[in-house]
Amino acid sequence: MRTIGLADLDDLCRGAAILGTGGGGDPYIGGLLAADAMRAHGPVTLLSLEETPDDALVIAVGGMGAPTVTIEKIPNGDDYVWALEALERQLGRNADAVIPFEAGGMNSTIPLKVAAERGIPVVDGDGMGRAFPELQMETFNVYGVPAAPMAVVNEWGDSVIIEAHDAKMVEWLARGVTIRMGGHSAIAEYAMDGATARRVAVPGTLGLTVSVGRWIREARETHEDVFDALIKGFADTHYQHARILYSGKLTDVSRRTARGFAVGQARIEGLGAWSGEMLIEFQNENLVAYHDGVLRAIVPDLICILDSETAEAITTERLRYGQRVTVLGVSVPDIMRTSEALDVFGPAAFGLQERFRPIEALT
Amino acid sequence: MRTIGLADLDDLCRGAAILGTGGGGDPYIGGLLAADAMRAHGPVTLLSLEETPDDALVIAVGGMGAPTVTIEKIPNGDDYVWALEALERQLGRNADAVIPFEAGGMNSTIPLKVAAERGIPVVDGDGMGRAFPELQMETFNVYGVPAAPMAVVNEWGDSVIIEAHDAKMVEWLARGVTIRMGGHSAIAEYAMDGATARRVAVPGTLGLTVSVGRWIREARETHEDVFDALIKGFADTHYQHARILYSGKLTDVSRRTARGFAVGQARIEGLGAWSGEMLIEFQNENLVAYHDGVLRAIVPDLICILDSETAEAITTERLRYGQRVTVLGVSVPDIMRTSEALDVFGPAAFGLQERFRPIEALT
Repeated sequence: MRTIGLADLDDLCRGAAILGTGGGGDPYIGGLLAADAMRAHGPVTLLSLEETPDDALVIAVGGMGAPTVTIEKIPNGDDYVWALEALERQLGRNADAVIPFEAGGMNSTIPLKVAAERGIPVVDGDGMGRAFPELQMETFNVYGVPAAPMAVVNEWGDSVIIEAHDAKMVEWLARGVTIRMGGHSAIAEYAMDGATARRVAVPGTLGLTVSVGRWIREARETHEDVFDALIKGFADTHYQHARILYSGKLTDVSRRTARGFAVGQARIEGLGAWSGEMLIEFQNENLVAYHDGVLRAIVPDLICILDSETAEAITTERLRYGQRVTVLGVSVPDIMRTSEALDVFGPAAFGLQERFRPIEALT
Repeated sequence: MRTIGLADLDDLCRGAAILGTGGGGDPYIGGLLAADAMRAHGPVTLLSLEETPDDALVIAVGGMGAPTVTIEKIPNGDDYVWALEALERQLGRNADAVIPFEAGGMNSTIPLKVAAERGIPVVDGDGMGRAFPELQMETFNVYGVPAAPMAVVNEWGDSVIIEAHDAKMVEWLARGVTIRMGGHSAIAEYAMDGATARRVAVPGTLGLTVSVGRWIREARETHEDVFDALIKGFADTHYQHARILYSGKLTDVSRRTARGFAVGQARIEGLGAWSGEMLIEFQNENLVAYHDGVLRAIVPDLICILDSETAEAITTERLRYGQRVTVLGVSVPDIMRTSEALDVFGPAAFGLQERFRPIEALT
């Protein structure tokens, strides 16, 4: 058992942007909300999945909607607590702990804010092991936890409780409500007991997110190579295989908004030792990377476009001509690579023709 | 206490089309659903507001969405019962009676179907006294009954419970969910006790709807003038002042779909004794009628465009060049003409500049 406090938040946000693989939203606003709650209520206890009691009621909380919206329509902050309360009322029982449903972006920090306010722990794990654009793309769903009942709440406390026959319909209805709520909502979903969480969650991802941010910061402070530090750091975790896929200059970005997503591709021209071109296709998150037509990494493995100088993540909407970027590929844990998992968030779920191949088999 | 049975349904549907004032959807499919339920379970008890016990739990049920959708996407029928059950689960109590929220169109018949299946009575009254396009336009809302919690259910039994701070937000969220459910949903809303229903409902509208249909049928059978029969019939009710506003040939209909509504205007050229032109503006329902620029009737009073031969109502989407039509205006009961009521469903609520003037003051 450990805690996450104010001093960890900068590392957490930096790491969350990287696990966001281009999506998940800017962790900055979520970080502010968590910092505010921690200043008032102190640090938050982080429970490993092993430490979470079998019968503890664990509820996933976070934000839903277009990340860009939260920059102009700042969440009031209470809405995330209200979402939890709305689901608790529905269940007739209070949560013993919250869990992120997503590792990466804003949804890494929001559970910390809710936990601090409520004085309950956060479980160290999540339902995506990275960022994904839709709510059915969760290991919670893959391994049989019902998404419903789900609470969707706006900044005035208006709430909607969704009961639906599968996670895709829950996502579909919740997305419609979120659009009507102005493009962003606070949600609580996938209520489960601790024993179930241990079976279905991607373990350790909140602690990992803090570590990723710390590796970058410490490497900068000691003038080590930041990318070497990331590769060494990941090697000791269940996100074992990290490697530089490419490095160069962004020469072209085509991006359009389709079905509420930022869809498009980025082209990078090699610099230094890197010849040819890398093509990355994205739908909010980066989905697939080719080097001169050869597959180098594919979803759900992580494809992170990082600033070549600072190793800060560049989100899809901030990609621009001329940026010097280094593309880091990272393998995801086995729980995210089973055939059941790939059915839900593998290449085919994004309309890609390529089949999944592990990044470590693609060198 | 009386009953509504199979033998009343044709009259009810004919009358419901007239109270729909151009909107509310075709009562035909709702009539089939009610007939089916009555064949299996017998006639339905109709409780007057006076007969409804003070502490009876009364819940409004019906359909939401574009009427045109129900013609291609037939409701499975069970969905309306499921909507009631979803709200009952939320309230922790079963309904003692159902009530229509709308008089006119499909929503006059659906409560009969639900009541027959559940073996409970229908309260003779409703929340609109006619058809209106949005759910906040109900006397239930005008006189202080909360619209929430509200249940919205689709044909697979997926359900959404909405809690919101006012009826307009309930409408806004429910409309979004209904769109995601394919354009039509089954809803249950405005749970209240019998004493409250007596205070806030437009009384007697279900019985009236059957009577309107009967007046037309009997006049046809006895070769009386159908319009005289309607005017005489209404005179003995709280919809007291009925009159022919105009009669002629439809010369122009302009209709566009805006914000999910059929918005536009119809022009009628006088025939026989009628000179000049009548202009009728509509938003699903007919809103205002001018004869050569002079106001003749305005919402919430009823403006019904009827076939000049048969007195059958012609809905907005079926208006066509060349039709011979007679426009009937009917005054609505006092409960629908208070300043609170006009704030919610008077001319300004539809963006009209004209102020409300009672039809009986406009001759």
